[in-house]
Formats: sequence, structure tokens, C-alpha cells
Amino acid sequence: MNRSELINAIFTKKSVLCVGLDTDITKIPKHLLTEEDPVFSFNKAIIDATKEYAVAYKINTAFYEAQGINGWISLQKTLEYIPKGIFTIADAKRGDIGNTSEQYARTFFHTYPFDSVTVAPYMGEDSVKPFLQFPGKWTIVLGLTSNAGSANFQLQQSGDELLYQKVLRTVASWGSPENLMFVIGATRKEQLQEVRALLPEHFFLVPGVGAQGGDVDTVCRNAFNKDAGVLINVSRGIIFAANDTSFAERANEEARRYQKEMEQHILDLK
Amino acid sequence: MNRSELINAIFTKKSVLCVGLDTDITKIPKHLLTEEDPVFSFNKAIIDATKEYAVAYKINTAFYEAQGINGWISLQKTLEYIPKGIFTIADAKRGDIGNTSEQYARTFFHTYPFDSVTVAPYMGEDSVKPFLQFPGKWTIVLGLTSNAGSANFQLQQSGDELLYQKVLRTVASWGSPENLMFVIGATRKEQLQEVRALLPEHFFLVPGVGAQGGDVDTVCRNAFNKDAGVLINVSRGIIFAANDTSFAERANEEARRYQKEMEQHILDLK
Repeated sequence: MNRSELINAIFTKKSVLCVGLDTDITKIPKHLLTEEDPVFSFNKAIIDATKEYAVAYKINTAFYEAQGINGWISLQKTLEYIPKGIFTIADAKRGDIGNTSEQYARTFFHTYPFDSVTVAPYMGEDSVKPFLQFPGKWTIVLGLTSNAGSANFQLQQSGDELLYQKVLRTVASWGSPENLMFVIGATRKEQLQEVRALLPEHFFLVPGVGAQGGDVDTVCRNAFNKDAGVLINVSRGIIFAANDTSFAERANEEARRYQKEMEQHILDLK
Repeated sequence: MNRSELINAIFTKKSVLCVGLDTDITKIPKHLLTEEDPVFSFNKAIIDATKEYAVAYKINTAFYEAQGINGWISLQKTLEYIPKGIFTIADAKRGDIGNTSEQYARTFFHTYPFDSVTVAPYMGEDSVKPFLQFPGKWTIVLGLTSNAGSANFQLQQSGDELLYQKVLRTVASWGSPENLMFVIGATRKEQLQEVRALLPEHFFLVPGVGAQGGDVDTVCRNAFNKDAGVLINVSRGIIFAANDTSFAERANEEARRYQKEMEQHILDLK
């Protein structure tokens, strides 16, 4: 899915909602555990319940990998089940030397044909560029993450800027707003404004809304550009809104609630 | 495998050789492609040919993941085939927020019972600590990598030190030399000495020897501590020493040659 298709989806659905499929088999409703593939059955119901409001789905690969072969089967079936026209993210946080990153890119662009994959920047240019070589695919590089540990390195001084600012500025020069996004887990107004000023054109994948404490209104007000330019991910706040037979209905209500919060901000861009 | 068992293996075999199973299906000898599981057949032959000299095997997960389910089956069979008493490394470069890192730790410590996994430090403390919670397992954190891209961030100034030095110093405080190693892809004498001075006790996993240009003698002379404290990884230089029916024999010769280079340095420690 290219940039203009993504922007079209955002304006059509009046939503920047990304639903995070962090499907922890120990947290899904018990009645699903008798299904042949409980994780896929759960994801299928969540997708059916939220696809009207979501412009993206993000599969957190860790939860699938931990289940071994069965997990990869659930991942593949889930990816195939996501309707065309919805952006897909492999949240895999990969990155290694060039010939190895190329294999990771093949994994998440060919073997499992996602639109995008998340990549860690620590190993630098030759670890990120192999992902950028795949036409029509997106690389989503960690910039500022939403966890407490972001203070250890990302928020440390690096010359006359902070490390995450150096990462954003440097990595942006390796690709374009057509094939490169950044993870910006900011929840504070000033930080969102400052990141948007640094990178006016790029899409940001914003986690940390819901269970992690951020709010939609602050993100939209401070990080939107003229194309919206943001995907706001909500995982647990939607998929685990209930853990009984009402889980899909509750996920639908939560997704709708998030979309409604986003709608006016998107209409204001017109 | 705990630290004293690893050290015993090093002194018994007079080797710090780690053989990297970066098994690229497009580079293995053609005659293996008719086997039911060519990657496993290749790895099995390589392990048989090198186990006398290797104290560790490192499976580069990217090459397996790119093959989908079949790749994970090859990975599992390979891991099971590695003889007891040889240290196993999942070179997976994982790392994410706490609940996700915990899933990655489960993947490589339980689902696939490796002794250790490589982890990227960018997301900080709560992304690394979940790996350190697993008794008897090792976390190998990226410090200074051997690729050109290490110059982008790792070698940048961070306060009064370089970023990779801050990473080593900070991450070392989260674990101990009993459960934490670092990837140190240094090839220059001064850098190896300086890293060893910073972390006198920890094991270093040193890639970049062979195809990437480093040499065994420089690493042993400058990075050894009293326990050796180093695992030197060679991947392509051993496993792809030949790509015809002589591949295993050539891998045996190369592994033996590397072990011989290491032997005198280890005897000098006594």
C-alpha cells in the first residue's frame, strides 16, 4: 500500500486507528481455547469487529513466535484475513548487518507479505537500508519509544541534540516519506510538536495510547500534518477490552470510540 | 550452560570458536537441495565436521525465518542436534517493551531452548531485563557491532563517552557476568583493550572475524581476560569454505585452523 492509498483510507474512514494484535494466548477468552487455532479465531473476530474503524493492523510478532510453528501459522492466517485496503505492520523490531537484514526484509515483505516492518536503528545505515530496497514496502524505524527505558539511551544527549533526534534526522536521510515511517511513542505535547517540526512529512506510528497512558486528542492536536501523518496504535485497550464472550462486541465499541475521537481532527484537516 | 561450564569447555577444547550457522539456502552445495530438509542436512554435516573445535554454535535466525515454517523446523532440528556441552546462541537481535520482550525470551529460552539470545539495547532497561529473569540463560546485548553502520550512532559522542560505551556501562549494571554478555565487533587493538578495561569480567561475543576482516590473534591478545572471556564467531569463513561435496571437509579444516590459532593464547592463560 503506497502513501496516497494510506492517506485515502484515513480520509475515507476518518480514522488513524491501528489495532495492535498482541494476541497473548493466556489472555484470550477461555471459550476460544477449544478452537483448532484459538489465536486465529480470536484475531478473526477482532478484525471483523474493528475493520470498519481501523486503517491499519499491527501484528506483534513476539506473541506468535513464542508459540513456535503454531504461532507462525496463526500469524499467516491472520495476515491473509486482514481485508485489502488496510495497512499491515509486522511489529518485529528487527535489524542486523546487511546480509542478515536482507533476510529479515524477505521474511516480512515476501514470506509473510506485510506492507511494513518495524526496525531498530542501533546498528546504523547498512542495517536499515536493506529494508528500504523493497519497492512498495515501508520501513518503520524506532525513534522515541513509549517505555520507561527510552530514558536510558534515546533521551541522552548526543552532541547538541538527544539521541532519538539524531536517529530521526539521520535515518530520514536514508529513505523518503514514501517508504519510511518512525515509531514515536510520545505522549507529551511539547515532544510531539518538536518531532513533527523535525520531520514535517513522515508518517509516525504512535504506540502508548490506552494501556500505556497516552491520549488520542493530544497526539492528533500536536503530531498531525496535512495528511494526518500519524497512525495511532491501540492494542490491549481494544483487543482485551473484555475477556468473555462479549470480547468482540466490546472491541467494536472501543474501536468505534477511538475512531470518533479521531474523526473531528481529520475533518479539521480538510 | 553456566559460566563455569562454558569456561571448562574453553579450556578443555583450547578453543573460543563459535561457528555461525548463517545457513543461506541459496549458498549451500547444490547436491543437498534434493534432501528433505536441505538446511538441516547442511547444518548436521557442518556440526559433525566442527564440533570437535567449537565451544559454541550461533544460529542466525534471519536465515531461518525467511524460509517460513520450514525454516523454523530446520532451526529446531539444528538446535536439537547440537551436542550437549556446546553453548547455543540464538542470534535474533530482539528487544521491545517489557511484556513483548518477555515473549521473545520465552521464544528463545523455552519454545526453542537456547542457552542465550542476542538483544538490541535501544529501548533500554525494561526491554532488556525480561531476558535476564530466566535462570540459567544468557542475554547477549549489542555493544559495538562490526559493520560500517556502527559509526552512525554507536560511535557518536554521548556526554563524555561514546554511545556504545554508555550502553556497555549501563547495561552491565542490569545483570552480572553470570548472565550477561556483549557483542563486541571490534577489530582494532585499542578498541578491544579499552572495552576489556571497561568490563573486565564479562564474556564478549566477537563477530567480524573472517569474511568481515578481523583476526583471531588481535582479538585474543587484546580482549582475553583470565577466563578467556571471549567467544569468536566465524560464519561464512567456515560454513561456506567450499560449496561442493567437500564443504564439510573444508569446514573441518577451517575450524581446526581457527582452533589452532586460539590454542596457544588459551594455554598462555594457565
